[in-house]
Amino acid sequence: MIKFFEKDPYAPIQYVYDVEKVLYKGKSKFQEIMVFENPYFGKILVLDGVVQLTERDEFIYHEMLTHVVMHAHPEAKTVAVIGGGDGGAVREVLKHDCVEKLYFIEIDEEVINTSKKFFPSVSCSIDDPRVEIRCMDGAEFIKEMNETLDVIIVDSTDIIGFAKSLFTVEFFKSVRDALTKNGMFVTLSESLIFHKELVYEVQNSMKLIFPIVDLYTASIATYAGNWWSFSVGSKSLDPREIRKPVKVSTKLYTEELHKSCFLPRDIYKKLLNKQLDW
Amino acid sequence: MIKFFEKDPYAPIQYVYDVEKVLYKGKSKFQEIMVFENPYFGKILVLDGVVQLTERDEFIYHEMLTHVVMHAHPEAKTVAVIGGGDGGAVREVLKHDCVEKLYFIEIDEEVINTSKKFFPSVSCSIDDPRVEIRCMDGAEFIKEMNETLDVIIVDSTDIIGFAKSLFTVEFFKSVRDALTKNGMFVTLSESLIFHKELVYEVQNSMKLIFPIVDLYTASIATYAGNWWSFSVGSKSLDPREIRKPVKVSTKLYTEELHKSCFLPRDIYKKLLNKQLDW
Repeated sequence: MIKFFEKDPYAPIQYVYDVEKVLYKGKSKFQEIMVFENPYFGKILVLDGVVQLTERDEFIYHEMLTHVVMHAHPEAKTVAVIGGGDGGAVREVLKHDCVEKLYFIEIDEEVINTSKKFFPSVSCSIDDPRVEIRCMDGAEFIKEMNETLDVIIVDSTDIIGFAKSLFTVEFFKSVRDALTKNGMFVTLSESLIFHKELVYEVQNSMKLIFPIVDLYTASIATYAGNWWSFSVGSKSLDPREIRKPVKVSTKLYTEELHKSCFLPRDIYKKLLNKQLDW
Repeated sequence: MIKFFEKDPYAPIQYVYDVEKVLYKGKSKFQEIMVFENPYFGKILVLDGVVQLTERDEFIYHEMLTHVVMHAHPEAKTVAVIGGGDGGAVREVLKHDCVEKLYFIEIDEEVINTSKKFFPSVSCSIDDPRVEIRCMDGAEFIKEMNETLDVIIVDSTDIIGFAKSLFTVEFFKSVRDALTKNGMFVTLSESLIFHKELVYEVQNSMKLIFPIVDLYTASIATYAGNWWSFSVGSKSLDPREIRKPVKVSTKLYTEELHKSCFLPRDIYKKLLNKQLDW
């Protein structure tokens, strides 16, 4: 069988996937896009050589990225998803009936089109009437909003290349200013085992801006490092608390997982003090 | 650079490591043994084509395998480690001053010798006077013990081939009979995401034998599936509880991690009811 060798500049292990069939290969204005079929994972979306999602396990990342802040916020009416052109985060956010408006900001329209064509189970909610798609830079979009968003979710590619602008102190400032007074922000922040310096940097930058900052993790087998971290910035509410009943249908996320996914406070303290010894 | 392609029959992703230098390649009575140097992970031990440990991240597996039960038990004096010929689990167990006797049962003497030669930071405690090494089948050893062990730890290779005998109902019965009345048993039980049927089977078999059975997990980037599970069988004590102060020096394990590493009860219930939808 043909093999796909992942090209992740951040990973000390290279992942190789069996390729049953290459379904699409193209180049957008921003990146190379590929879709192939794997016997175990189903269809796999690859951007610039790095696996972004597989049909089989995408639920882990998308549920964990969205449902923690969506349940910590008592009633998120206005939400922005920055990146995540596949639509997986949009699908999860729209499971919350309280959402009235979802700004879906993806810089690369081709990712949306590719997902609509090849990943209907992921992109299924993109055409929901509550969704407003804007194909533009997420940092630019956020700058223009002012105290209008309850939740902002960054679902970008790795913290390199053009996604870098979504991890600066300047961006975090715009995010804070775009949020309502109980607003919450969450972003992926790479692997706690392979990229702990990067996790530290993101946390440290967020701490300059948000009164409450926290970190939770999930095991994701198809992302390098696997012990994947999510960083939360909040203007007033503790994200470890659940503020509305868990009614969404999920495969992984549960009320108890919400509580246990946060990094234990003694380890979190070590991270912030740069005392993690690995 | 030369590449090492892992050959894990259980993994839907193949892992590839850079090989700076092959330090050892041999064949014991039981398996092929290889040691190589990798620029990121340091030395890596491979058995029958599958990565068993890397110098850089072995602490995660060894700390999580041992310290949960060692802290849930109020005072483990007599301990058996079955497998784990590298000595990593032995090193962690011996950090507990209460341990007076440690039976170290490794079927393959060559693994011990290889670890002593190439992994001094892992094998460093094998020659401790409290350790009694027996190179024999772990199941055979356990059969002969009778209410003498406070803690039994299985640190085997994957649940295939000759390690299979360590995952049968018959073995779990011998384990129960070998344990003192407050005794506790822990074994690896594969990946919750890739091998959930296997995890279910191990749990189900243990439930036939032990009054208390539980499951906790850790993210291990170098083991396929990464969301690695550990199954605990206990004769009387709840393993989620810590019964002595945490004084051991560790990189990852902490008091709070002990509490949060157990699978949330709502997800655990789904596992046992075969309702995990992945």
